Amino acid sequence: MVKNSIDVSKLLAGDRRSVARAISFVENENAGAEQFLSEIYQHTGNAYRIGITGPPGAGKSTLTNKLARYYRSQNLKVGIIAVDPTSPFTGGALLGDRVRMSEVEMDQGVFIRSMASRGSLGGLSKKTREAADILDAAGFHIILFETVGVGQSELDIAGAADTTVVVLVPESGDGIQAMKAGLMEIADFFVMNKSDRPGADQAVMSIKMILGFRPHDEHSWMADVVKSTASEGLGIEKIASEISRHRNFLASSGEFEKRRSKQMKSRIEEIVSDKFTITFWNSDRKQQLDQLLSKIISRNRTPYDVAEELLKK
Amino acid sequence: MVKNSIDVSKLLAGDRRSVARAISFVENENAGAEQFLSEIYQHTGNAYRIGITGPPGAGKSTLTNKLARYYRSQNLKVGIIAVDPTSPFTGGALLGDRVRMSEVEMDQGVFIRSMASRGSLGGLSKKTREAADILDAAGFHIILFETVGVGQSELDIAGAADTTVVVLVPESGDGIQAMKAGLMEIADFFVMNKSDRPGADQAVMSIKMILGFRPHDEHSWMADVVKSTASEGLGIEKIASEISRHRNFLASSGEFEKRRSKQMKSRIEEIVSDKFTITFWNSDRKQQLDQLLSKIISRNRTPYDVAEELLKK
Repeated sequence: MVKNSIDVSKLLAGDRRSVARAISFVENENAGAEQFLSEIYQHTGNAYRIGITGPPGAGKSTLTNKLARYYRSQNLKVGIIAVDPTSPFTGGALLGDRVRMSEVEMDQGVFIRSMASRGSLGGLSKKTREAADILDAAGFHIILFETVGVGQSELDIAGAADTTVVVLVPESGDGIQAMKAGLMEIADFFVMNKSDRPGADQAVMSIKMILGFRPHDEHSWMADVVKSTASEGLGIEKIASEISRHRNFLASSGEFEKRRSKQMKSRIEEIVSDKFTITFWNSDRKQQLDQLLSKIISRNRTPYDVAEELLKK
Repeated sequence: MVKNSIDVSKLLAGDRRSVARAISFVENENAGAEQFLSEIYQHTGNAYRIGITGPPGAGKSTLTNKLARYYRSQNLKVGIIAVDPTSPFTGGALLGDRVRMSEVEMDQGVFIRSMASRGSLGGLSKKTREAADILDAAGFHIILFETVGVGQSELDIAGAADTTVVVLVPESGDGIQAMKAGLMEIADFFVMNKSDRPGADQAVMSIKMILGFRPHDEHSWMADVVKSTASEGLGIEKIASEISRHRNFLASSGEFEKRRSKQMKSRIEEIVSDKFTITFWNSDRKQQLDQLLSKIISRNRTPYDVAEELLKK
């Protein structure tokens, strides 16, 4: 019933209310969400997806907003999906939306949505990609995924993008720390934001040094470091031009298709896992687990044989 | 065969080589790992598990090492499981081990293991808990989980602890940012590390203010903020005493059993998912997916109906 309230043709025409409703619909795992996503799927694949990630406090939101404005000045429609790892309890995602709203203002060509990562039922990166599909089908040209933190799921979301930008600040530590945080592998390039602060040049050097150690040849993409001071709008054009250089590289090297194939594979794996989990944990099995729990805690059963028993039923 | 090389009785006696081998065995998902874990499971449940998390650069490693030394001075055996979100490619986890080694030195009562989160097959928090079980069975009294970053999986690991400590620095931003990063919900208390830096008192105040907004009554645990300068060993005893105060609260309030039950539940869900995934993605299904991939990319099929088709077979 709810499904009928989302008019697919209106969504495809770019109607903002339909976009907002469709994302909520998918986020809340309404019955029929999958049917709806299947219907719009053929209208996706046109938007360019950019991941913006990095440690908290690096200025990702500011940079994302400025980048959105830049693309607006090129007359491109921009969707922003910001993943805030908060639950409904703290209301962080909602707060995030409000803070953002005031910054990019009420431009009809920008759609901003915060998604809470905690307390969600299905896989986070599944829902994030689905929200991106909705924006894609609605005719948004650029989709910016902004993820707080450097965690596994957050990196996965950034990795679902065509171009992934890792934002650091001079205080983020040196290249070794970025390497330890797993950022080297997902970054298509780095932004050293707040580069007016002391230590910026040294931090850039140390990232470049580590980047130089990566195996590469003349045909491979060389990640670079771009300096910015997003709060003052400095370096935004350079970032946009680096994104565009990477986009051209992907297109000319055939990497674009390879990346999208790889991403689709992991996406299907996630859909399969989600479907299994939802079907498997019916009320019967939940009840069985509840009954067996005390035996596991008292060490009379092991978690492994209980899992096995549940799977066999 | 490999399994036979780990002598369970030697492990239970606390033999370090057996511990190291057992963790590698489990980490590499060797056949028989589950059988092995089932065998030792009855000897677990005695160690107290402490999660140390927070943004990169907050000084978690230093603080963890100092805390380990403190517990050693109480004659307790300490296991440290550090999750470095790096893949075998960058070798970050290995590097981490080496850096750590020199700090805590070759004390026989401390066992340190870095686990890489990227590139691992099964669920990260599953393996981390299994490594903790091995240390627990081997007679380690305290297990410290140290996780880099504030991402979803990393928070899950911290959440698998009895007491979770969130380490911040004055530069981490204010309470609102900590809230947005989802740290408020997992923190049993906060440590403001590097508190000799400017802005420390203000940062502590802002966290305390947000903490005060949380719903609570006289029976509930009130998270506090402890100041430290771990690099100089300042505040370590206060941290240990806050951990101990929380431990007493858990025991007297009955929260300890509730927490462990809840954790066991999520642990079994993870075991079930892992078992399903491993069984499901056999070579046949992998091949089928590879064949269907181009049709999905060209929008002739949707990811949903392909997932459905694979699940039906």
